[in-house]
Amino acid sequence: MTEAVDTDAVLAANRAFYDAFERGDLDAMSDLWEHSDDVVCVHPGWRALHGWGPVAGSWFALFGNGSPLQFILIGERAVVDGDLAWVTVEENLIGEGVGSTVTAINVFRRHEGRWRMIVHQGSPVAPLAPG
Amino acid sequence: MTEAVDTDAVLAANRAFYDAFERGDLDAMSDLWEHSDDVVCVHPGWRALHGWGPVAGSWFALFGNGSPLQFILIGERAVVDGDLAWVTVEENLIGEGVGSTVTAINVFRRHEGRWRMIVHQGSPVAPLAPG
Repeated sequence: MTEAVDTDAVLAANRAFYDAFERGDLDAMSDLWEHSDDVVCVHPGWRALHGWGPVAGSWFALFGNGSPLQFILIGERAVVDGDLAWVTVEENLIGEGVGSTVTAINVFRRHEGRWRMIVHQGSPVAPLAPG
Repeated sequence: MTEAVDTDAVLAANRAFYDAFERGDLDAMSDLWEHSDDVVCVHPGWRALHGWGPVAGSWFALFGNGSPLQFILIGERAVVDGDLAWVTVEENLIGEGVGSTVTAINVFRRHEGRWRMIVHQGSPVAPLAPG
């Protein structure tokens, strides 16, 4: 029972991330990330950003370019293990002249009852998978 | 002190993963992954694979294609939080006609004193970062 409640809370935190992303809402995005040196963010095609400062800067840059994105999320799966949890999800992006698929992992850490994002990594899915 | 020991053990587990990858050693690769439904693996450009069965199948396919890879690893960083830990690292791949950079996150879970891989996600780094 507790586990199901935890999973729901983690999935809600995950949805809040995509809601903030779609709205380009910097305040909401800032509120849902942990502000620590542990955070990591990898935007599709980018190198990893470490620490809240550089990660915040990336959202500022992305939200400033004026291209709204819409996410169709498929196959969200959450694993909760104590005060850490991760969600894997396929992001199907619809934007201005952009239509692409990204596989993402989002890691959350619980502190004082609230799940905050500590890792976001988005990997572009190639049109035809190799192998 | 304990924290530094844990970090060393996690980094050793991370190196073991790349050693097995370079050697194309399926037994070693199998031994270092947790064999559970929680595992997730995203190869660069691929969709996510869930559960040990599909993940094992992907290593079998990759190791069967006969192209040895060499990894130059840059900027390994480990975060340990209880029995979970994650390493972020930049993989510079040198292979037959292949030269590329991948940003990876590797998540490990400790069980009975041993760190096993539960998530590997590799994201190709674009020649020029967008934004």
